[in-house]
Parts: sequence; C-alpha cells; structure tokens
Amino acid sequence: MRTIVLGGDGFCGWPTSLHLSDQGHDVLIIDNLSRRKIDIELGVESLTPIVSIEERLMVWNHSSNHKINFQNIDIFSEYYSLLRVINDFQPDNIVHFAEQRAAPYSMKNSKTKRYTVDNNITSTHNLLTAIVESGLDIHLVHLGTMGVYGYSSVGMKIPEGYLNVKLDVPSKGLIDQKIIYPTNPGSTYHMTKSLDQIMFAFYAKNNAIRITDLHQGIVWGTQTPETRLDEKLINRFDYDGDYGTVLNRFIMQAAIDYPLTVHGTGGQTRAFIHISDTVKCISLACTNAPENGDQVMIRNQVSETHRVRDLADLISNKTGVKIAYLENPRKEAAENDLEVENNSFLSLGLKPTYLELGIVEEVYDIAKKYSARAKLKHIPCVSKW
Amino acid sequence: MRTIVLGGDGFCGWPTSLHLSDQGHDVLIIDNLSRRKIDIELGVESLTPIVSIEERLMVWNHSSNHKINFQNIDIFSEYYSLLRVINDFQPDNIVHFAEQRAAPYSMKNSKTKRYTVDNNITSTHNLLTAIVESGLDIHLVHLGTMGVYGYSSVGMKIPEGYLNVKLDVPSKGLIDQKIIYPTNPGSTYHMTKSLDQIMFAFYAKNNAIRITDLHQGIVWGTQTPETRLDEKLINRFDYDGDYGTVLNRFIMQAAIDYPLTVHGTGGQTRAFIHISDTVKCISLACTNAPENGDQVMIRNQVSETHRVRDLADLISNKTGVKIAYLENPRKEAAENDLEVENNSFLSLGLKPTYLELGIVEEVYDIAKKYSARAKLKHIPCVSKW
Repeated sequence: MRTIVLGGDGFCGWPTSLHLSDQGHDVLIIDNLSRRKIDIELGVESLTPIVSIEERLMVWNHSSNHKINFQNIDIFSEYYSLLRVINDFQPDNIVHFAEQRAAPYSMKNSKTKRYTVDNNITSTHNLLTAIVESGLDIHLVHLGTMGVYGYSSVGMKIPEGYLNVKLDVPSKGLIDQKIIYPTNPGSTYHMTKSLDQIMFAFYAKNNAIRITDLHQGIVWGTQTPETRLDEKLINRFDYDGDYGTVLNRFIMQAAIDYPLTVHGTGGQTRAFIHISDTVKCISLACTNAPENGDQVMIRNQVSETHRVRDLADLISNKTGVKIAYLENPRKEAAENDLEVENNSFLSLGLKPTYLELGIVEEVYDIAKKYSARAKLKHIPCVSKW
Repeated sequence: MRTIVLGGDGFCGWPTSLHLSDQGHDVLIIDNLSRRKIDIELGVESLTPIVSIEERLMVWNHSSNHKINFQNIDIFSEYYSLLRVINDFQPDNIVHFAEQRAAPYSMKNSKTKRYTVDNNITSTHNLLTAIVESGLDIHLVHLGTMGVYGYSSVGMKIPEGYLNVKLDVPSKGLIDQKIIYPTNPGSTYHMTKSLDQIMFAFYAKNNAIRITDLHQGIVWGTQTPETRLDEKLINRFDYDGDYGTVLNRFIMQAAIDYPLTVHGTGGQTRAFIHISDTVKCISLACTNAPENGDQVMIRNQVSETHRVRDLADLISNKTGVKIAYLENPRKEAAENDLEVENNSFLSLGLKPTYLELGIVEEVYDIAKKYSARAKLKHIPCVSKW
C-alpha cells in the first residue's frame, strides 16, 4: 500500500509513519514542521530529545531497512504542491494528522483561535479538493476527537459517529432516522474537528470519496515498538500546559515529584488510548476502508474511560506523589459520566493497552529518564476559558 | 441603533443597508467589493446598471437625508482593521452578508471551491473572534440559507433550526431532545453555511454572544421602496448561470423571450422570498435579538415554496415565453416536496410579498427596461456537479 502521512513528524504522526512503514506501506511524510515551530513560539521543548526529521528518517532506514520519504509542504498555503505530490505518489491512503491539536493552545488568544480554525479548516478542505482534482480513488483517514461529542451525557453510551433517533412525523408516527451525532465541542480546537465532520459528509456524498474519521480519546504514553528501536527514533513527550495531555502530564509530574495538577474536582471523565494502540488503529483503518459512495466511516479510537481524579489517585498510590487540586481553567462540567462504544476496532482485532498495567513503567522508562530536561515553569496551564 | 452591515454593497446587503438607514439605524457598511470583482472575473454584469459605492452613498444621502458610512475592509485578511472599526463604531448589531453566496460559482473548480470555504469560514470566524476580543455586547445577525437543511424530506415541515427528536436510552426509555436540524448541504457554498452554524453554536455557548442565524430561501426581485428613490440606488440583478437566482433568471428570460432554462424535470421544490421582504426580516431580526447565553436564534426567512416547473409554467402563461427542459447540472433529487415552518417572522408582523402577485410587474419594471444590456451567452449554467 502507498500511504501519505500528513503531519508525519508530530506526536501521533511520527510513530504512525514508522508503524505503517514496518507493516509494509510505502510511506511518504508531508509536514511543514509546524509542531516544532510552535515549541519555539511557546519556548517549550519535548521532554524526550527529538532529532531533526532528516536524521529520524536516516536512522529509521538503518534500523529497519525500510525507507520513508519526506516533503516539507504546508498544505494550508501550498495547494498546488500538495496536488502535485498526490498525482506523483498515487497514494492508496492519505492519513491526515496535519491539524493544530491542542485545545488550550487554541484558546490562548484571538491569534491562536484564528490560526487553529484557518489552519485546520483550510488544510482539510484543500486536501479534500486535491483528492477530487486528482481523480484518484484515495482513502482518506482523518484523526478526529472524542471531543466532538461533548461530555454531557443523557445516560447512554456514545455511539460510533452516528445516532439513531426517532422523529415524530405527522400522519406517520415515530420514524427511525440515523444522524451524525449532534456535535458539542468544548474548545475552538474541538470545534474544528466538528467542522471537518460536515466537510467529510459532503465530499463523501457529492464526490464518493472514501473517508474514515477516527474520534480518538486522549493519548498517553510515548513509545511504540518501532520508536524503541533507536533512541533517535523516540517520540515527543509534551508536558507543558498547552500541548501536554493530562495523563502524560501526571506521569512527568510523578517522575519529578511535582504535585499532580488536577483541575477542579477532577470529576471529568474522559476516554484514553495508548500511543501504541493509536498506530495500530490507523493501520487497521487503512486496511478496512469504506466503499465509494458509503457515508463516512466513523470509528471511536478509544481503549477505556476514567475519571481524572481516579487517575491521579492511581498514580499517587503507585508513586507516592501528592495531588494538587487547582482551579479549573476550562468552561466545562465539573463532573460527568462517560461511556463510549468502541467495538469497531475491537472487532477488527485490536487488543488495547490498559493504563493500569503500563502506567508505572511509563513513569520510569521515559519521564524519570529524561527528568533532568524538565522545566517546572512550563507545567501550569495558562490558557483559561 | 448602531449597525454595521458586512457585505453592504451586495445584492442583499445594499437594500438592507438602505432599509435600516431609513428605519433610523446609524449604518456603517464594510465591504471589500468582492462581488463587483467576481463580475470582472466572470466577464458578466448586473442587468441593472450599478454605480460605484461612493456614488450610491452620496445619492442616498441626497435622497433620504440619511448618511451611511463605508469602509473598504476585507474581513478575511484584515482582522485588525475589522477589530478597530468594531471598537470605534461600537455597534449594537453586525449584519453579516460578507460571504461568497453562489452555489454554482462554489462548484466551478478547485479554486472557487477553496475560495468559498476559505473566504466564508475564515471571515465568519474572524468576526466571531473580533466580537469576543472587543468585549462589546453585540448582536450578530447572519444570513444563512435554507440549503443547510437539504431537500430530502421525510414528510414533515422543516422547523426553524432545531429539531425535536426522541432518543431511546437504556433504562429510561424514550427521551426528548432538541438538536440542531441535521445538516445536508448540496454544494460547497451551502456547506459553508452548515459550518457557520457549528461555529455560532460554539461561540453562543462559550462566550454568550447573541446570534441570529437566518435560513433564507431563494431571493427574487430587485427593488425595495428605498432603492426605488433614485435610479442610482437600484439594486443589482444577476441573470448569469453562476449568480442569477432561478426566479430572476426566468424573469429576465421572459423579458427577452429566451426559453426558460428549467434544469431536469423542474420537480425541485424550493423556498422563496422577495428582496423587499428580506430587508424587513433583517430589520425585525435586529430588534428581536436573543439574550446573552441563549442558544443561537434560528429563523427561516421564507415566504412561500414552489416547484420550479410550476414557476416556469406561471411565467410562461403570463408572458408567452417558451420553456426549455435542460439537463440538470447539479447532483440533487429530481423531485422533492418541501414544507417550511416560517412562523417566526410572521409572528413578528411580516406581511410577505407573494410572487404570483408581483412577478409580471418585475418582468416589465426591471427586466424589460434593461433588456438591451442582456448578454445571452451568460445565461447557460456551466458549473456541473
């Protein structure tokens, strides 16, 4: 299979590119290196040391005997370069990670709000238009988020993308209808993924593009079997208040004995997945594409759900670190329940990595090893909304 | 009331600006003159002769004794100019027409698709962000479209924005839920209005912005009481295959005895409104804003629904013009029923102009008067999808 990975230098994109390459895909990474540039803008750094994309790819070539090519293209501003590469490379799949992915960053100020919307929407729409213009039959695999569903439950499991409802139609009575789950994003970032959904539905209907949209939970962990092959292949690990995901922040805080930063009561229930499961899900999505003319295939990319304070307790019990209950900077429910349907990937054979089993290993393997690189001043969340 | 009209030089924006000015609003038009520039790009012209915006405003001042100011700002690319004007002018309302509004134009090619999405989404999001950043309590009135609902009916009246559904929740049984009507746009243009809806819902929830979204039917007609005051105040009249709306195209075709261009069977049922009702609806929307913290107020801006071939028959019977049944260039149902709830504006006092009564007058008043300016080669639709 020939697969382009957009955003293949990022936190999910890099290990995915290696995994697909290992699985025999001919992989081409397209990335504008924006994630590295935002590190510079924020004055932060991955806890793990990241080498240049060129060096990463050279080391992968030596370690695995597979070759991954790379092109530095900004799909937001370089539409015709993107189109040319698609026409030249003739991919079977395009895996699309090339969006600004941090909710706190998207809510910092009017500039980051606007960047997030402009970058994510224009880039995704450029991609859809380029696929149409290429005339090729390409399967688009997009990384969405569980956040499109919102977290206000009415006591039912969140289904995979589509919701069955009943409509009361005069003279017909109750009629069954299947609709896209009504979206309820909690940040400008999450909103962009809700907009993506509408664009995907239109292009799947109007142009019979085959699209898989993956509503992913919060990713934790760092390494996959492929990134462990050489230290220069290591994945990024973000712990700062903007890009650090909640569980990786706790892991790093435990490693340096910094009281775990729980926002509000910690009563927020969220869905989680380990990065090594992320890459397997993308691989499964590539080989299980919908047919032309099908509606968008939406899969929940989630292994388990947990209440944030339970995670803090778990890590505190296993490592002895204290917990600090801080004011919640976000506009969200203090407490919520969350149950998520995730049979789609389980039925394709995914065996999830559960965090209770892997979390302490992660603290010692990664966070303690690189703790000398930690900068405490980057831990607090400064974006408030 | 102080009111900014974004896109106030366009087909709906110009007569709305005059009407609001006549009603006593202090009106500021912001426009980048993109509609005039697209005329140049397409090599077409309004059937009615349009003078410059400066001359229009001077004549309005002389005719009405009211003053409208104008600033040439591109709200897509000049965010800080937009923000400055909002802060300086301190509007009560911002009426937002500043989007590319032709479905056929949006489907011409990858460039016009991309322009439509980039322009409409970035501009609308810039506006939302600027309202938040200004800190002012501004009521945003946005022109949406009936096209967000799609035209595949299950036999019920399309409600005004929100749909009551029943959810089957385990252990609770059927639960009532009110959701945004699931969107089903038929073109890239209509898709942008579906995306707008999601952005409005988020900013109304997260920032308590007061927003009215008007899902308008297909506009017909040209003049309003205010644009009739002087020939230099006349509104645009588009008859070309991209920007001409179906009924105005029929009116112009009847005037020059050009067989009415019915696409497919003409079995498409659509919603219509006269331009003089459009401006009244906007005025009513301005004075009936939702409260801070309310969900988006969605109103259907529609007077009546008709099947396209019935309209062609009506005009043919009244004027003697023939009908030409052409291949439908659009991907849409050949035949559909459509019933639309429109009580929102009726209950505020709107008395609609029905087309059966005004249509012949329109043919003679406008289309025949300016028929020497008609260029036949611009009539066919060339965008196909």
